[in-house]
Amino acid sequence: MTTSGIEEVVLKSIKPSREEYEHVLGVYRVIADAINTVLREHGVEAEVTLQGSIAHDTWLSGDRDMDVFVLYPESWSIEELKSKGFKLVVEAAEKLGRYELRYAEHPYVRVRISDVEADIVPAFNISDPTHIRTAVDRTPFHTRYIRERLTDEMRDQVRLLKKFMKGIGVYGAEVKTKGFSGYAVEVLIARYNSMRRVLEEASKWSPPVYIDSISVDESFWKGFRKKYPDSVIYMPDPVDPMRNVTANVSVKSLAIFSLASRCYLMNPSLVFYGLEYEGPSIDDVKKKLADRCIVLVEYMLEERLPPDVVWGELNRVRDTMVKLLENFDFHVIDSSSWTDEDRYCAILLELDSCSLPVYKHYKGPSVKHWERSHSFISKHLGRGIGVWVDEKGSLNALSLRKYINVKQILEEGSRGYSVAPHFRDIKPSVKALSEEVITELSGRGALRWISEFILKTPIWMVKCIS
Amino acid sequence: MTTSGIEEVVLKSIKPSREEYEHVLGVYRVIADAINTVLREHGVEAEVTLQGSIAHDTWLSGDRDMDVFVLYPESWSIEELKSKGFKLVVEAAEKLGRYELRYAEHPYVRVRISDVEADIVPAFNISDPTHIRTAVDRTPFHTRYIRERLTDEMRDQVRLLKKFMKGIGVYGAEVKTKGFSGYAVEVLIARYNSMRRVLEEASKWSPPVYIDSISVDESFWKGFRKKYPDSVIYMPDPVDPMRNVTANVSVKSLAIFSLASRCYLMNPSLVFYGLEYEGPSIDDVKKKLADRCIVLVEYMLEERLPPDVVWGELNRVRDTMVKLLENFDFHVIDSSSWTDEDRYCAILLELDSCSLPVYKHYKGPSVKHWERSHSFISKHLGRGIGVWVDEKGSLNALSLRKYINVKQILEEGSRGYSVAPHFRDIKPSVKALSEEVITELSGRGALRWISEFILKTPIWMVKCIS
Repeated sequence: MTTSGIEEVVLKSIKPSREEYEHVLGVYRVIADAINTVLREHGVEAEVTLQGSIAHDTWLSGDRDMDVFVLYPESWSIEELKSKGFKLVVEAAEKLGRYELRYAEHPYVRVRISDVEADIVPAFNISDPTHIRTAVDRTPFHTRYIRERLTDEMRDQVRLLKKFMKGIGVYGAEVKTKGFSGYAVEVLIARYNSMRRVLEEASKWSPPVYIDSISVDESFWKGFRKKYPDSVIYMPDPVDPMRNVTANVSVKSLAIFSLASRCYLMNPSLVFYGLEYEGPSIDDVKKKLADRCIVLVEYMLEERLPPDVVWGELNRVRDTMVKLLENFDFHVIDSSSWTDEDRYCAILLELDSCSLPVYKHYKGPSVKHWERSHSFISKHLGRGIGVWVDEKGSLNALSLRKYINVKQILEEGSRGYSVAPHFRDIKPSVKALSEEVITELSGRGALRWISEFILKTPIWMVKCIS
Repeated sequence: MTTSGIEEVVLKSIKPSREEYEHVLGVYRVIADAINTVLREHGVEAEVTLQGSIAHDTWLSGDRDMDVFVLYPESWSIEELKSKGFKLVVEAAEKLGRYELRYAEHPYVRVRISDVEADIVPAFNISDPTHIRTAVDRTPFHTRYIRERLTDEMRDQVRLLKKFMKGIGVYGAEVKTKGFSGYAVEVLIARYNSMRRVLEEASKWSPPVYIDSISVDESFWKGFRKKYPDSVIYMPDPVDPMRNVTANVSVKSLAIFSLASRCYLMNPSLVFYGLEYEGPSIDDVKKKLADRCIVLVEYMLEERLPPDVVWGELNRVRDTMVKLLENFDFHVIDSSSWTDEDRYCAILLELDSCSLPVYKHYKGPSVKHWERSHSFISKHLGRGIGVWVDEKGSLNALSLRKYINVKQILEEGSRGYSVAPHFRDIKPSVKALSEEVITELSGRGALRWISEFILKTPIWMVKCIS
């Protein structure tokens, strides 16, 4: 299969069909009608618009996430928007059927109609994108930019790049993924025209990466970098240049994208897109458990929270946990967090070994340094075995460790690592990962997460060397 | 107890009594008479002399090692000395009873009369000590020097210092101990007059140490050091200045002596002399075995060899063994060799842990270095778990180890570490140290060695901090 052949095959499977378009746009009309009816009933002048990848025509077949924005007059106050504007949206949602109230920075409503999940978001109808009042106000400008900037061919290239990023796990700007947003993919294609050009560039990336999406001069980057000191890739938003479209991309996502790009260019294959690969069975995964120390720490939150909040706090808890274990000489090989985005949260840790020797070997100073020797002897004598002098004339001791078992530290030390607000008062449960625990987690929808943690090798990695 | 009080108590227990002197000198007369009779029968002119610590009057009560030298004419050839001279000595020994033939650089005879062990050594009667022909020819000059140089008080100080060094395990220049010879102790007292002055100096030593026993000028040391590049302490022999009396002192012995000196001066006690301390019972020792990984490697040599040869080869085997284990990621905390100086040889190793995780965690390059990433992936993919990209954008792998068990390496790898001539073709036996093995070793006379290895803390160490 030639490269362009592969891309054609992928495109065929991800490009929505005419029927799918009609179905999705039909759903949009139902929603828009409902909202317009409510607006009319209340005598409110507002514009109902379709936004996001469906409006950009860069969506993938089967991805039925729709963004519907209700744009209220710029003359309204934020309070009016959040109370009156939001209430009108809720009223429309009630007419449409089941709905959920959601809050990010901003309140909105999620409805489900047939197999389409639609977010209905109140926003302002702003004239200048640099004067936005809430983050969502920027969205209509993105839609306008993308629709004007991308050709049909480029929209297909966006689809390919999105699918590629999904396949390697770097698609999505949420805290969960810390990867590239759909808009970031669109801007990348706007800048480089084709997926292949983007991959060629990405394969050479070394953070910090600067992508000049808007033709800025050198002096621009200094201030931009100052505004986003933690970013590893900088790409100005064409509709609001001081905003970094790739602000949340992690070093890891960047590295994976860069490596996978290089490997794909060398050895293009459907596996990069997550196609033509079944995924391991639960039994294959269980077989790889032998001779390893993998520990699961589980929390049951007291309330449901916005996903970005949960993922963020969970990652903080995990980082602290890893540091704690390393302070006690445990070698943490890998760690990962997961939540069902309801109340269940879990952390997986892989260690070299689940237990450490009872005694720890301390290397002391040379006896020629008397002050240091004296304090070493004072500290260690009677705490285990030694002190003694070795062949090099230095002091040594074997002292008893406080903790020799990872489960014990994680159970007794939970107050020391449950450092995020919603985790602080919850006692986690600590388990060694076993076949039973895998079955249990699989029931919670975490099988893919555990599989990836246990197998560790991304399926496309083999293409980096063949 | 005041310090001088302690030293008086020690001296009382180590200074030979009048009866012991008479007994020992009586034995000497018996030996001298037997040799003189043989010499007369063969018409050979030679001088029978008493040498060593008994001749110096610096011996310790109970130490019944006697050196009898038969000094043949300087006009003889070395061949004559080694054949005729040696034969005459053997003939005398036959008359005295049971004897053993010994060879170091030089052949000699060991006889045992009552509780005295006497070495009868053929040597040349040399006029100038810098013109000696075999190493033993220097001995009569040492005797003359010490007898002329030391006062009675200084001889007692020699006894105290010898006993102190014995107590802390640094007395003896043989390969077994790599410490200070009796003559080195005598020269130290000749230089500093008292044990306390020697300890005061030693407590400040930092290798390389220079002891000017003969008033040399600065320029002397450069050539001296060149002649003994591996020494850590330099003390010219007053009767042959280009010879280093302390050539064989190891860093470890020097460090122990220096530390113990400091601790003694701070907190004098009989324990430094090995007095007033029973030693641990075999049960106390066994109790300290729990939760440790101590392995015993045993060799049974095919022939009996000079002790310095066995100790030397055994130490080489041990050093190689430690390096091998460390190459396979085992952490060797301590190691020690022992031989009964007959055919049995043993090495003890203490490790952090007797086994390692099945998988070894390899940290690879950042993916931004493509060439290195490619070779890391090529090397590790399929060898275990991974390769994967971590939070820092670097590659990682868990690859299967070749050896995870110390016993397995030591058994399968014995050709790799049995690197000394007399060990090369012997298959060692490898055992975990258990209570049974301790009992077994104790039967071979190795209890003190094992006890020290298991307990590790020298009994005097506590005096360094109280």
